[in-house]
Amino acid sequence: MSKIDHSVKGWQGVPFSSVNIQGAFWRRRLEVLKSVTIGVCLDQCESTHRIANFAVAGGLTEGKFEGIYYNDSDVYKVLEGAAYALMTEPDPSLEAEIDRIVELIEAAQESDGYLCAYFTLEAPDRKWTDMEKHEMYNGGHLIEAAVAYYQATGKRRLLDVACRLADHYDAVFGPGKRHWAEGHEEIELALVKLYRITGEERYWKLGLWLLEERGHGHGVGMIWDKPEWGPAYCQDDVPVRDIREVKGHAVRAMYLYTAMADVVLASGDTAYVEALDRVWAHTTERNMYLTGGIGPSLHNEGFTSDYDLPNESAYCETCAAIAMAFWNHRMNLLHGDGKYADIVEREMFNGALAGISLSGDKFFYVNPLASKGEHHRVEWFHTSCCPTNLVRFLPAIGQYAYAVTENGIAVNQYMDGETTIAAADGRKVRLIQSTAYPWEGRIALAVLPEQAGEFEIRLRVPGWCRGYRVSLQEEGRLGDNEARLEKGYIVLNRKWSPGDTVLLDLDMPVETVRSRPEAEANRGRIAIQRGPVVYCVEQTGNEGLDYDAFALSPHAPFAVEHREELLGGVTVLRGHTAEGMPLVLTPYYAWDNREAGFMQVWVREAEDRQLYRF
Amino acid sequence: MSKIDHSVKGWQGVPFSSVNIQGAFWRRRLEVLKSVTIGVCLDQCESTHRIANFAVAGGLTEGKFEGIYYNDSDVYKVLEGAAYALMTEPDPSLEAEIDRIVELIEAAQESDGYLCAYFTLEAPDRKWTDMEKHEMYNGGHLIEAAVAYYQATGKRRLLDVACRLADHYDAVFGPGKRHWAEGHEEIELALVKLYRITGEERYWKLGLWLLEERGHGHGVGMIWDKPEWGPAYCQDDVPVRDIREVKGHAVRAMYLYTAMADVVLASGDTAYVEALDRVWAHTTERNMYLTGGIGPSLHNEGFTSDYDLPNESAYCETCAAIAMAFWNHRMNLLHGDGKYADIVEREMFNGALAGISLSGDKFFYVNPLASKGEHHRVEWFHTSCCPTNLVRFLPAIGQYAYAVTENGIAVNQYMDGETTIAAADGRKVRLIQSTAYPWEGRIALAVLPEQAGEFEIRLRVPGWCRGYRVSLQEEGRLGDNEARLEKGYIVLNRKWSPGDTVLLDLDMPVETVRSRPEAEANRGRIAIQRGPVVYCVEQTGNEGLDYDAFALSPHAPFAVEHREELLGGVTVLRGHTAEGMPLVLTPYYAWDNREAGFMQVWVREAEDRQLYRF
Repeated sequence: MSKIDHSVKGWQGVPFSSVNIQGAFWRRRLEVLKSVTIGVCLDQCESTHRIANFAVAGGLTEGKFEGIYYNDSDVYKVLEGAAYALMTEPDPSLEAEIDRIVELIEAAQESDGYLCAYFTLEAPDRKWTDMEKHEMYNGGHLIEAAVAYYQATGKRRLLDVACRLADHYDAVFGPGKRHWAEGHEEIELALVKLYRITGEERYWKLGLWLLEERGHGHGVGMIWDKPEWGPAYCQDDVPVRDIREVKGHAVRAMYLYTAMADVVLASGDTAYVEALDRVWAHTTERNMYLTGGIGPSLHNEGFTSDYDLPNESAYCETCAAIAMAFWNHRMNLLHGDGKYADIVEREMFNGALAGISLSGDKFFYVNPLASKGEHHRVEWFHTSCCPTNLVRFLPAIGQYAYAVTENGIAVNQYMDGETTIAAADGRKVRLIQSTAYPWEGRIALAVLPEQAGEFEIRLRVPGWCRGYRVSLQEEGRLGDNEARLEKGYIVLNRKWSPGDTVLLDLDMPVETVRSRPEAEANRGRIAIQRGPVVYCVEQTGNEGLDYDAFALSPHAPFAVEHREELLGGVTVLRGHTAEGMPLVLTPYYAWDNREAGFMQVWVREAEDRQLYRF
Repeated sequence: MSKIDHSVKGWQGVPFSSVNIQGAFWRRRLEVLKSVTIGVCLDQCESTHRIANFAVAGGLTEGKFEGIYYNDSDVYKVLEGAAYALMTEPDPSLEAEIDRIVELIEAAQESDGYLCAYFTLEAPDRKWTDMEKHEMYNGGHLIEAAVAYYQATGKRRLLDVACRLADHYDAVFGPGKRHWAEGHEEIELALVKLYRITGEERYWKLGLWLLEERGHGHGVGMIWDKPEWGPAYCQDDVPVRDIREVKGHAVRAMYLYTAMADVVLASGDTAYVEALDRVWAHTTERNMYLTGGIGPSLHNEGFTSDYDLPNESAYCETCAAIAMAFWNHRMNLLHGDGKYADIVEREMFNGALAGISLSGDKFFYVNPLASKGEHHRVEWFHTSCCPTNLVRFLPAIGQYAYAVTENGIAVNQYMDGETTIAAADGRKVRLIQSTAYPWEGRIALAVLPEQAGEFEIRLRVPGWCRGYRVSLQEEGRLGDNEARLEKGYIVLNRKWSPGDTVLLDLDMPVETVRSRPEAEANRGRIAIQRGPVVYCVEQTGNEGLDYDAFALSPHAPFAVEHREELLGGVTVLRGHTAEGMPLVLTPYYAWDNREAGFMQVWVREAEDRQLYRF
């Protein structure tokens, strides 16, 4: 039974812009993102006519629309990512380039607020006739870019474009107006963002209305006409409050759930929470890869049947992994439960991160967990949603680190750096996190409130961690009533004085992972994880091995070695196959950054007759 | 097919007397052993007439035999343990007391060398008529005591008694003489010890002959007459070279295998090695408890059927756990494989160690893995083999730490202290081991050869350890060809200079252990181990819980806390039951050292619906 509960408040996110990341792991990624990836993506948007389409639509240059109807979104996503980069480090030339593009976008907006270069140029008479044509998807990404750029620079120009577009939607669609079930979700979460920055209630209400439109037979267009897809492909098969199972296109599903988790904070509709909880369990318990990848099938870029998790043919779109992080971050804020931050972490260090080369200029769209050697990152895609999603995912990675709880602060992700957080009571607390995570499980957290005071600090105990030590640098062990475990967090509720330092030591052993037996592809196989990092066997470094022609004992020990010079600095695991061949495991996210060759995450398990049992 | 292979040599043991243990864990045990346990056991031997029996048999005092026919052995075992204590620390008053008892023993020896107070006093006409009557078992323990006391003091008096006794056996039994299948093995391994110290080949050959006597229908006496026992009870059902399965009385079986592993080094009979390998697999894969305990049944103090491993009614005699250590130490030396040292370690920190209270004056004979609260250590037993086995097991614990390999030294057990080892080539190497093992997995090993030189150092990677780091303090990471893994060891083969220090860091996470599914008692249950230490839930410290009325998530995290003030200094694991109750796990070996209450090793596993799966 649905009810309205305005106590559905949850935790508050902490913007990445207040998180100064220092540690090598993310710092290097951010530098490459800034120095390479943004430029690469802007160049691609330029050379593929994605940017020019706006100029043509705006009448600024001659020409016609080139590319696919959703190509506007890639430009918006690169702008969003560039805005995030500007938030942490000013860059006048990048800002000038964005300003130039903003002018083109603005020019492309029609007088009633409509904005979608494809329709303006190619099919003005077919606007709003096919819900698969990504009109609002494009618009959603414009809104996200506009919000980001406004936050980064204070410039309203793109934000005004976004508001006019949202107002246009609001004028055309809504109760008593036209129906609309957008084929690719995105607009709904974007409207919540726009509400948050403008304070205009109508934006989140339009987002809610768009969510509520789904599952009532309003869908019209290409998806609904294709019998092998149908309404489930874009989550239009049931009303969102009745969702029980994850279905259809993976990215669309994740964006939908992300929006639901956003909207419910405003609507207080507990039916949404219940639907989210159901579909989260269904997604994570039966339809998620070890890497956090989701959506096994190329056919629908999405879900098939429970436990269908093939490795070589895994689709696991990079965007879907990123969207899982988006959704799970919201679920963490909604429920204050570390198990969702576990999934965010899984995407951060595996499924999402694998999508980009260490050099920052090559991308995976598809992320299999096994390859005979034919699968490689490339520079760009015809449909290039994944590179442009990475451009906005990575610079904002710091947003996952902390949250503001009712009584203090939660540390959700471990990354070396510092931040200043305004707690719910207005108290400002500076935190300095020192750690070599994800390679080491030791974290020192210096707590520096403006003044001494009592509040809670929650430290997530990752799902992979079975044993931890927590103490205060000065006082040693914490009292039994100073540290309790709750929903995946160590809760330290005490009086903090500036400079108090918490020492957290998370056991980070090499772990043999077994798949649940229903997952046929992994039967008789094991995988190796250490901390949050899933490992793989790459042919490079293991030249003596052939694809799937070796086995690993579940008890095999590994030498844990950090190699600063390898793959941007990784901890490798050196051991032996059951056949006695030397074996080096490297992080999955870093695969295909050297010579081409095979790769496997799930390897054959050797029956270990040598070992005693109980 | 049996063949003689005189290359069956194996590694050499390093006597505990050259291992100076410094670390708190064993140091405390050794101090209590010396200051409490030896005295307690001598007093018990005195007050129960065990010592007086010798005086009466020797005609030094009036009286009659009191007690059971195998009671001589307890006196011998205490003397053996006292001798071990004297080896590490002189104690004139203890030595004087032993000398006094030696005189009584010598007096009890008959003129032909025969020595067994029970038969001398009670049934001189029934000597050698019932092979269950422990005549040679007693004799074996005399020999072990005599060898130990000779090593400790250089005094030959008891050794001469032992030689006369062994010569008497050799005169009466052997090819062309009388048959004998001793009901309780012990003499066979003792005769090898006597050979090693005297150089008299006939002693190990008599041991071999006694082994070969078994399984040929020579058994006569009480065991063989009891249909529910029969020859398998004392391993007289098949010739030893044909042994396939562990059977019968657990201690007897272990002493048999120990002797076989000793004798084969002299005999080179590969059929023995094959039999040992078969029965080792059968014992450890199907008939061993998590604690290293063996022999589930009170009925025969031994084995029943495969996977019959009940927890509450587990017999798991302390002597059997100690004997498992004896046997596995020999297997380690024979095969140079760390998997046997794993079992030694399992006994050291669990099954065997549980047999003695922290105070050193109370003992378990029976070691269940679950108790509703009725099972407690006591001061002594009518059949008191277990206290007197602990008296000789603990002071010699250092013998398990090192071995001399063909090309260097193996570090088998981690214990803080120092030793000087003569390698196979005569080179003397001093080793200083610094570690807080078993509470921490970090070990620093300073290597101090007399002169720089090339040799190997093997470091055992315990079976519970999946990830380790090994480096040199000065040089950092070892080269790929400097450290290889072989048979459970990291093999460091390099040129060592005095002072080179190896840093080994063994991941020591909290581990959820599952029993193999065939073990019915543990279905639906999990246990917790950290490093070599098996944990349990005791009622003390968990007053809110009822016996077996709680469950534990297999993913539950635990705070790892070292409590120097608790139970002699232990690392406890603090977490929660699945029902949300606080839970403290303490080492199994330390249970029943506080108020009486329930104890469980295997606890009910909660189905964890909260967690994502792959």
